[in-house]
Amino acid sequence: MGSLRSFVSGAWRAPADEGTPLHDAATGEEVARISAKGLDLGAALAYGREVGGPALRELTFHQRAALLKALASHLREHREELYRLSARTGATLGDSKFDIDGGIGVLFAYSSKGRRELPNDTYLVEGPPEPLGKGGTFTGQHVCTPLRGVAVQINAFNFPVWGPLEKFAPAFLAGVPSLVKPASQTAYLTHRLVELIVASGLLPEGSLQLVCGGAGDLLDHVTAQDLVSFTGSASTAQRLRAHPAIVRNSVRFNAEADSLNCSILGPDATPGTAEFDLFVKQLVTEMTVKAGQKCTAIRRALVPAELMDDVAAAATERLGKVTVGNPANENVRMGALASLEQREEVRRSLKALLDASSIVFGDPERVDAVDADPERGAFVSPVLLRCDDPERAEPHEVEAFGPVSTLIPYRSTDHAIQLAARGLGSLAGSVVTGDAGFARDVVLGAAPWHGRLLVLDADNAKESTGHGSPLPNLVHGGPGRAGGGEELGGIRAVLHHMQRTAVQASPKVLTAVTGRWVPGAPRNTEDVHPFRKSLAELRVGDSVVAGPRRVTEEDVAHFAEFTGDTFYAHTDEAAARENPLFGGIVAHGYLVVSFAAGLFVSPEPGPVLANYGLENLRFLTPVKPGDELTVTLTCKQITPRENADYGEVRWDTDVTNADGESVAKYDVLTLVAKEDTR
Amino acid sequence: MGSLRSFVSGAWRAPADEGTPLHDAATGEEVARISAKGLDLGAALAYGREVGGPALRELTFHQRAALLKALASHLREHREELYRLSARTGATLGDSKFDIDGGIGVLFAYSSKGRRELPNDTYLVEGPPEPLGKGGTFTGQHVCTPLRGVAVQINAFNFPVWGPLEKFAPAFLAGVPSLVKPASQTAYLTHRLVELIVASGLLPEGSLQLVCGGAGDLLDHVTAQDLVSFTGSASTAQRLRAHPAIVRNSVRFNAEADSLNCSILGPDATPGTAEFDLFVKQLVTEMTVKAGQKCTAIRRALVPAELMDDVAAAATERLGKVTVGNPANENVRMGALASLEQREEVRRSLKALLDASSIVFGDPERVDAVDADPERGAFVSPVLLRCDDPERAEPHEVEAFGPVSTLIPYRSTDHAIQLAARGLGSLAGSVVTGDAGFARDVVLGAAPWHGRLLVLDADNAKESTGHGSPLPNLVHGGPGRAGGGEELGGIRAVLHHMQRTAVQASPKVLTAVTGRWVPGAPRNTEDVHPFRKSLAELRVGDSVVAGPRRVTEEDVAHFAEFTGDTFYAHTDEAAARENPLFGGIVAHGYLVVSFAAGLFVSPEPGPVLANYGLENLRFLTPVKPGDELTVTLTCKQITPRENADYGEVRWDTDVTNADGESVAKYDVLTLVAKEDTR
Repeated sequence: MGSLRSFVSGAWRAPADEGTPLHDAATGEEVARISAKGLDLGAALAYGREVGGPALRELTFHQRAALLKALASHLREHREELYRLSARTGATLGDSKFDIDGGIGVLFAYSSKGRRELPNDTYLVEGPPEPLGKGGTFTGQHVCTPLRGVAVQINAFNFPVWGPLEKFAPAFLAGVPSLVKPASQTAYLTHRLVELIVASGLLPEGSLQLVCGGAGDLLDHVTAQDLVSFTGSASTAQRLRAHPAIVRNSVRFNAEADSLNCSILGPDATPGTAEFDLFVKQLVTEMTVKAGQKCTAIRRALVPAELMDDVAAAATERLGKVTVGNPANENVRMGALASLEQREEVRRSLKALLDASSIVFGDPERVDAVDADPERGAFVSPVLLRCDDPERAEPHEVEAFGPVSTLIPYRSTDHAIQLAARGLGSLAGSVVTGDAGFARDVVLGAAPWHGRLLVLDADNAKESTGHGSPLPNLVHGGPGRAGGGEELGGIRAVLHHMQRTAVQASPKVLTAVTGRWVPGAPRNTEDVHPFRKSLAELRVGDSVVAGPRRVTEEDVAHFAEFTGDTFYAHTDEAAARENPLFGGIVAHGYLVVSFAAGLFVSPEPGPVLANYGLENLRFLTPVKPGDELTVTLTCKQITPRENADYGEVRWDTDVTNADGESVAKYDVLTLVAKEDTR
Repeated sequence: MGSLRSFVSGAWRAPADEGTPLHDAATGEEVARISAKGLDLGAALAYGREVGGPALRELTFHQRAALLKALASHLREHREELYRLSARTGATLGDSKFDIDGGIGVLFAYSSKGRRELPNDTYLVEGPPEPLGKGGTFTGQHVCTPLRGVAVQINAFNFPVWGPLEKFAPAFLAGVPSLVKPASQTAYLTHRLVELIVASGLLPEGSLQLVCGGAGDLLDHVTAQDLVSFTGSASTAQRLRAHPAIVRNSVRFNAEADSLNCSILGPDATPGTAEFDLFVKQLVTEMTVKAGQKCTAIRRALVPAELMDDVAAAATERLGKVTVGNPANENVRMGALASLEQREEVRRSLKALLDASSIVFGDPERVDAVDADPERGAFVSPVLLRCDDPERAEPHEVEAFGPVSTLIPYRSTDHAIQLAARGLGSLAGSVVTGDAGFARDVVLGAAPWHGRLLVLDADNAKESTGHGSPLPNLVHGGPGRAGGGEELGGIRAVLHHMQRTAVQASPKVLTAVTGRWVPGAPRNTEDVHPFRKSLAELRVGDSVVAGPRRVTEEDVAHFAEFTGDTFYAHTDEAAARENPLFGGIVAHGYLVVSFAAGLFVSPEPGPVLANYGLENLRFLTPVKPGDELTVTLTCKQITPRENADYGEVRWDTDVTNADGESVAKYDVLTLVAKEDTR
């Protein structure tokens, strides 16, 4: 491949020197060379801010979501090519799918979340309006706007596709351009990924840049509107977090560091139970997928003391079936580490672990490699250890970033929670048990030290995605040792790229700022009925006031009989008088909202197609026979759909009695045509 | 007062040396002495973790909220005493109320938010369950649990009561103990506050500690489960953010630093308009309240170039009426700075500002002080500057932390936004205009640089709380120069003290973990009707399945006629056939939910007192005449009220047709008695 180019400031740029060779993990052959020499990284950041940001902010969330979907489909068409290149990182086909399909899956997930959970707008209105004064003239509303900088994404070597995509997707959806810096070892795969993305022509100019090679002075140029997110070792995370420009400018910094994750076997899960088998199977899977090079892999297997020997025996049997070798060979179950340097690092860590542990399975120095040269490739055997003194420091502190785990005995639920916490913060943990009470105690006890906890049992084993798999809709990150960061988690990660601002204003101005009608803002009732207006004509604030309608004793009795809702408060005066909230017969809440609909509806065919739901309905004042109802319906929010000839309209609905008290408040949700074609 | 004691590790402790004198800001007399010499701060943190945390975590959110309310009432009874002591910090009675009543208000606000927006439980279930597999056996749910450490709260000198309380309230509500370290200058007031709190006996042991004096080695002892929040200067914030223990342990660090906040006058607000007067009045208020010692005060007044002279003249006239002097004197409008050192600091900054500006009002070196000695007390005149070259750096970079502001001209809306951004991150900004379009453009343009933006106009002037006032229900903090932090904002600040964990499990286990019924979990239908059960008997998962009931053509026609909801899709077969979503007559959604209630209700008097609302109602499949409806109602969440003999019960409701498709899903909200007394 020669020297990897970087894609910065709108063009592919070759480095100014020959660079450092990158080697095939399995064969040791040179794959490519890497260097960032001669790149102007300050200019790349400025370009992202000045070209990428404005282009992205022109688009709505839904438009960005549609681009993410198109991009995901495009990459899916090219995945075979990516799989092949991925084998050179030491990855088996299964490993490659984990990385590549996983990354594409994140794009699809954010596309879907963006369309379903964000408005079709360029910024986000967060939470309800907050009334700030009793007179109703002063209201607060949080809005989230995209940061005006660049998301600098520094990735780890172990997920050259998923890593960049899981950081890029939420940044893009937020409207913030990305600058991706992959770890050198496997950067050729990220390089190819970005080539495919750029060639697709799908993304706005400047929304994605790639720096192959060292970060150089990149971070010296970050400002308060930029973000830095890092995945990698705890020590590098610490160095970056204290970088002078990051500290000086209060730059948002997010770190995911590999951690000493644990998996806990429940005391109920004795040999012969489904959960015992699931625990052992998952442990071996986590040790061998990506040759154990996962930040989320199980490093500590916490086992009831009396089950240590059983687990050791069962795991040994399974590990004995793991074939190690050329990752491109179909019969191979576990490929190579990413480089010979990584193997040295794993062996060093194993040496430290062995001070407190003994070997259950494997030989740190020797392995049979199918269809490969075990010395030229970075092959290593899976190694299972046991540390029978759970209070020793090593298994809780030393991480071998490869196919290495340690069995550790525990005595009680509390002891298991204590040992879990000794990782001082983990990305992921799991509990394998058929006992829901044990699961509850461990999850709530261990939660403050974990970003994610999986409870695996016979019920969910078929569908479970496993201990080690972060999912786009769940947060990924963990406290302390794990970096103290948080990524993914659906829209949460989009918000990480936005500034939350509390806006205080009169309801009228707040309506102008947010594009949503805020209670207290003027209503437009002078016009035609708002149900006669298509999306093209409708404006927030368009209203109809209808009524009054008197609710009679007969209405309530009839509604009870007709619907079958003969609850005593509607039918039995004596019993209703005893009800502490009503003190007499009241109309059904369902009657109130049905009458309200009868008042506000405009019956003839028109742009309003359907009422598809109600939100936040509260019955605020009992309606007694004889009360008169008036309803005010006000257009609150308009969300046109990108790929349909209609959109969603949310209507603020306020039903009042003759005293002007609200008896019910709710939002009516309708679908309304973009154009009135009748 | 002698030496201030600290309240750590469960006792009041005197320092081991004489300490440093603290002086009355207005008279220069010694008020107290301060030192932390001899305190074991590592032990204090350990005590908080081991005693305070467990005691707090025993309580539910609602119980903690009730304690906050009791504490607020207790402090309100003692506020006169606090006002008197506050005068010694240089504060007028108005300034003292801002600080003391403001702080008490935060306690009331968090008490109220806690009761209304959090469950009556010890941890928080956040967001909806996330289905993770198509088979429904694997589901995700985010839960937030209190961190197991201590919230270390390092406060600024300018708000000795509000500062500690605004940090303490959300920490306490979250279940995390606080260790408060006030700035020395005004620590005697925080000291008295904490004495009052401790004497009340209201708080669980260990939930609040106070360190008077230097922080010493305090931060060396923080762990990943502790938090550090700081309010003060940008330079100290930077130093703390890079503290080795904070970096090493990924400790959550939140900073609020004073910033170069701006207020923008709209071009519409010419002399004679209400908004012109409001702008000038607010500017003078912000300059003089707390003698301008507010992180949120207006430092830069951005004025349309053509209105500079008018604003200068109007502000000069108002400033001329500001009496400076003894803050205890009723005729005094502005008191002293907190210390003579602060005055020197303000004069130094003024010197730097004067390189680019000229003086409109005031003399940095001289002021008349009513009822006070202007040399012994830290008095200074309000000083208004003008900088006619808006591109100069000084007014955007140099802050005089006192009664000092600079008028700066702008040319266009975009220019105003650009100048606002030159503060590189602000806590607060304001726009004073009667033009909603201008307000919208400025707010959305400046939002990425601001934590809070106020739009002030004639509509909200009476109720507005003003540019400089953070409110408990709105976020407080700002990017970049302002520290990059976020406090308050209602429940958001509670979450800052909790670890968010994604829990993945089968619905049954997730129900056990969260205490809420999760779709897919087993239902208990074998028992009596769940409406016959009091809160004491009811369990999540208790269900009733009722139906089927056939919906006839006559039902739909009758419902239309009875309610008046004659929408064509319910009444006109030909027109309904044209509707793209229905293709024929459909039953009203309101009819479906009314019939469902008729099916699931248990009519006789019993523990269910009322249906007070519905949530998240979605009509998923059209119901055609002839369809048969079945409803399944399942107890989803039980929230007993602390001070009532009933609580809230949320019921998952699923209405299906004969094909088993859901036609409507929603939550029914009811009030249910704790005991069935009938």
